[in-house]
Amino acid sequence: MKAEIISVGTELLLGEITDTNASYLAGQLPLLGIDLYWISQVGDNRVRLVEVLERAWQRSDLILTTGGLGPTEDDLTRETIAEVLGEELRIDPILEREIQERFARRGVKMAPSNIKQAAVIPSAKAIHNARGTAPGWWVEKDGHILMAMPGPPGEMHHMWHTEVLPRLHQRATGAIIFSKTLKVFGLPEGTVGELVSPLLSSANPTLGVYAKADGIHLRFTAKAKSQQQAEEMIAHGETRVRSILGESIWGTDNDTMASVAGDMLTEKGLSLVVMEYCTGGLLATTITEAPDTSAYFKGGLIPYSNEALIAYGVDAKLIYDYGVISSEVAQAMAEVARLRLGADVGVSITGVIGPDELEGKPVGTMYIGIDSSQNKKTIEGNYPGDRFRVKRWVTNVALFELRKMLLALD
Amino acid sequence: MKAEIISVGTELLLGEITDTNASYLAGQLPLLGIDLYWISQVGDNRVRLVEVLERAWQRSDLILTTGGLGPTEDDLTRETIAEVLGEELRIDPILEREIQERFARRGVKMAPSNIKQAAVIPSAKAIHNARGTAPGWWVEKDGHILMAMPGPPGEMHHMWHTEVLPRLHQRATGAIIFSKTLKVFGLPEGTVGELVSPLLSSANPTLGVYAKADGIHLRFTAKAKSQQQAEEMIAHGETRVRSILGESIWGTDNDTMASVAGDMLTEKGLSLVVMEYCTGGLLATTITEAPDTSAYFKGGLIPYSNEALIAYGVDAKLIYDYGVISSEVAQAMAEVARLRLGADVGVSITGVIGPDELEGKPVGTMYIGIDSSQNKKTIEGNYPGDRFRVKRWVTNVALFELRKMLLALD
Repeated sequence: MKAEIISVGTELLLGEITDTNASYLAGQLPLLGIDLYWISQVGDNRVRLVEVLERAWQRSDLILTTGGLGPTEDDLTRETIAEVLGEELRIDPILEREIQERFARRGVKMAPSNIKQAAVIPSAKAIHNARGTAPGWWVEKDGHILMAMPGPPGEMHHMWHTEVLPRLHQRATGAIIFSKTLKVFGLPEGTVGELVSPLLSSANPTLGVYAKADGIHLRFTAKAKSQQQAEEMIAHGETRVRSILGESIWGTDNDTMASVAGDMLTEKGLSLVVMEYCTGGLLATTITEAPDTSAYFKGGLIPYSNEALIAYGVDAKLIYDYGVISSEVAQAMAEVARLRLGADVGVSITGVIGPDELEGKPVGTMYIGIDSSQNKKTIEGNYPGDRFRVKRWVTNVALFELRKMLLALD
Repeated sequence: MKAEIISVGTELLLGEITDTNASYLAGQLPLLGIDLYWISQVGDNRVRLVEVLERAWQRSDLILTTGGLGPTEDDLTRETIAEVLGEELRIDPILEREIQERFARRGVKMAPSNIKQAAVIPSAKAIHNARGTAPGWWVEKDGHILMAMPGPPGEMHHMWHTEVLPRLHQRATGAIIFSKTLKVFGLPEGTVGELVSPLLSSANPTLGVYAKADGIHLRFTAKAKSQQQAEEMIAHGETRVRSILGESIWGTDNDTMASVAGDMLTEKGLSLVVMEYCTGGLLATTITEAPDTSAYFKGGLIPYSNEALIAYGVDAKLIYDYGVISSEVAQAMAEVARLRLGADVGVSITGVIGPDELEGKPVGTMYIGIDSSQNKKTIEGNYPGDRFRVKRWVTNVALFELRKMLLALD
């Protein structure tokens, strides 16, 4: 079943809102084994809407539209579908009463224009909208299905789950599409692509390589009769990829670097503290975005000045001798933080976030310190880019190195 | 000039990411007076990409593509443009060297496949990518312009502003569309809408009301012969809105709550420290995202446990008597942080982030403390919602209240 999504609304083409409806629906279709080939956004313009709908009707088996079902003149989805299918719009008296009653319940006077929301065509079945006044349309004709849904995400999501998904489940071929993502850090996209290139040509499961904020994601997508079968198909590829990339793979699917490190700390019964000089709290924020953080995260210190660094207990002489941007101070920060809060592991970050160089070190120079009673290590790196990217990158490196250190504890 | 946007990437059709690039670019075109008629998303599939590009080339004067410029086999935008325009790809030696040097700087070995990012066609001019390895393409042929940009938003935004916008400005003609946004906090969207309703019917400039993460945005959009004329048209409306909403308006356009507070601190020569119990560093992170933070931000303390709270200098008896979730402890946190780092202003946050209630206080209970030598105040609030929204909300309230306190110093 070839599917197509059409999002209707001039505000989409003015950039006033981002089309989250399309990505929401796109994420739903794989579960039904339906292939999505096309997404487009079109304004409240009859000519262009007709063109888009006609093409969709020719090339797609299932067409999902959102938007353009409102009561105002510029809401044209119903009129356009009628035109494309060459059918007549007529007011459905039952729908008309429902809409009137809805306004009555809210104690609001109904604008006459709302009546157009009660219009249907012969091959359209009106679909109840529990969250708004505009009913949807389920249209079936010549082997095509067109489902017109309202634009407001709240109304659309509810209609999708209660009315559309059950209907589509009956049509679904039985095949499902299942994905699994392996998350890699520390290798550039091109290198990862080269290393796994033998698998990139596979048709089922497919393997995609994506650069993300937390590294490179490798996504297997399998089409199969059952989820179990799909998982088995993916398991083979996963084994191969893991043998190639080894410890560069830090997580899967919904894992975050913070949740992975957090789970390991919980499992080992270890507590964590951080001291971050240049990331201004991003490491602590990232750590505390994981669930149940308080089980292992004791706290953080954010010296944003040398006075603060010293006030937090870092030896002034060390700063004088080596500079704040040094592995020596990074190591001291991690140890001081760990000791003063009586934690098992301390992680620190110091570096040059920019815009200007610091202590003669270029922007992007970063030192990470990790300190536990058994291990001490510092990591040095340099990453070009804007402030935000450098902060995010060094935060990821710190969490990745923390994970490596915790793995080594086994 | 008729424009069209094409976003390339299978992950868009699997619903794994939402296409923010299209809405970003759609929001930019009105400033150039360019009409956007079409947006579509297409996967990394040669056949469908060719079809979409061919149609765009026929019907649009300006085509903006994002994505598909990466180094892996499934990145097909370059190859497809070459096919549609019937031109040959060849490696540009200068681009090749640039890419190699970029890897060298990062001390990373370049995968051979990255060379394809140095490929161009005769009618394409390579556009420098300051944030990544994939150059863009500015293609001009038969009166059409096609600009291919990388998919990662950070790379695309930077290329758009530094390379594409200036080029398009030269082509743009006649009327321009200019917008100005006023940012409001502390009032619900409905209330703001009611208050400014007299202005909502205006046709030029239009006024739009949008709920955003940092409050309610009021956007004026004027169409005029010149920017100056547009600004004058908007100035009238702005005066009216400011007389209605007064101090609830905390900023405009690119202001963030942190940058606004930061500018006031810099101007008054005051330094700032924070202590945050439940937001885990989000306040400090938000503050340090503003430019030149180190001019006024001295540092932060993130107690994520009572031991840490006490270790940082908060009186254990106070915690015992009133509990951590109290205005008394909030006030003490702000004062302790300020005094121990010798800063002028201290801001604190304590509260219940969830999932469970704490000290008998429900999730969402928040106390903010602000402490300076002249003023002390605490703000109590409760905000229902998930962890992330509560953290973001209380961080916004803290910065909004800090601004109010700084205004009162005048």
